[in-house]
Amino acid sequence: MGIKVHGTKVSMCTMRVLAALYEKGIDFELVNVDMATGEHKKPPYLSLNPFGQLPAFEDGDLKLFESRAIAQYIAYAYADKGNPLVVQDVKKMAIVTVWMQVEALQFEAAAARLAWELAYKPMFGMETDVAVVEEHEAKLAKVLDIFESRLTESKYLGGDTFTLADLNHLPIIKLIYNTRAGKLFEARSHVKAWCDDIQARPAWQKVIS
Amino acid sequence: MGIKVHGTKVSMCTMRVLAALYEKGIDFELVNVDMATGEHKKPPYLSLNPFGQLPAFEDGDLKLFESRAIAQYIAYAYADKGNPLVVQDVKKMAIVTVWMQVEALQFEAAAARLAWELAYKPMFGMETDVAVVEEHEAKLAKVLDIFESRLTESKYLGGDTFTLADLNHLPIIKLIYNTRAGKLFEARSHVKAWCDDIQARPAWQKVIS
Repeated sequence: MGIKVHGTKVSMCTMRVLAALYEKGIDFELVNVDMATGEHKKPPYLSLNPFGQLPAFEDGDLKLFESRAIAQYIAYAYADKGNPLVVQDVKKMAIVTVWMQVEALQFEAAAARLAWELAYKPMFGMETDVAVVEEHEAKLAKVLDIFESRLTESKYLGGDTFTLADLNHLPIIKLIYNTRAGKLFEARSHVKAWCDDIQARPAWQKVIS
Repeated sequence: MGIKVHGTKVSMCTMRVLAALYEKGIDFELVNVDMATGEHKKPPYLSLNPFGQLPAFEDGDLKLFESRAIAQYIAYAYADKGNPLVVQDVKKMAIVTVWMQVEALQFEAAAARLAWELAYKPMFGMETDVAVVEEHEAKLAKVLDIFESRLTESKYLGGDTFTLADLNHLPIIKLIYNTRAGKLFEARSHVKAWCDDIQARPAWQKVIS
């Protein structure tokens, strides 16, 4: 049976799941989903993810979707393998969970649109909307101000160790760090150090290789 | 020390945290935050939630924000009290987590704007934007089609028992169920039965009383 990831390395959310798998050193099969032909919007893919989004995930009989839920499953189900991505203490894990929520709801709201405008649109030969970029850069700057403050208190967002609260940010950071939005990260010394640190992780290097 | 919730019963995210506390039967103090004077956008509140959003939460020395992270902490830290809101089995919990993510990222994206247009704006004497309502009703209908299908397989979104995957939906459902958007829930028999079931829970009745 084994683990199957249905997705593509171009998809941010697929990258998130691959990062968790490489951190754990778990074997898996990447089953390519052809977005160009809309394979993700048709059966049989819709039986794996009814929202028609990438990725979907199988571990034997278990079928999951939503990349953050998949990464969290990998962290708990394979707790004894590779690098820990969660913490055991309930109060410490609550802090990690706060910053996982911040990523999903605050960071993503500002940065995912920048990834679309600054990375995907040029990739597809589409024109970037500069007004939208400026609006979302302003939003991202406010979020990163809070990250800068947080990262003066602890090395990672969730605490002293690397966790899903950091990992979940990697795909968007990868996409926009080398665009005009990269200056927002570079202008904040703790945020920059954090980005450099988490992007240098061997597991992440495998994802982007 | 005890548990303090900084927020107001008008805030959807505060309601989510109160629902979890009442399910667990835990004593707490609701510390009112005066949104009308912008108390949530100034110190000292910003030291509790740097994003200036409601609610914030204290349990002794532990300080948390992001309502879904708080509800999850309550579920794990007080696992032995009141009604269970999570499940122990890692694979079953992964399914619960999928639907928690669906609530936060898919349902909220469609429905929170409807809550604003159809519930909060009338409350504040502002005019509802019908075009925005129609756009988001169409989005919500697609999400609820997937819920309807899911709820033919299991009584609750996360599985056979009530969990955070259901609870987290309650505040928005409460706000829009008795508006024009209510027809979207009522038109889907399994969704309607699920809404009726979870809204009738004694803990939720305490929140809205």
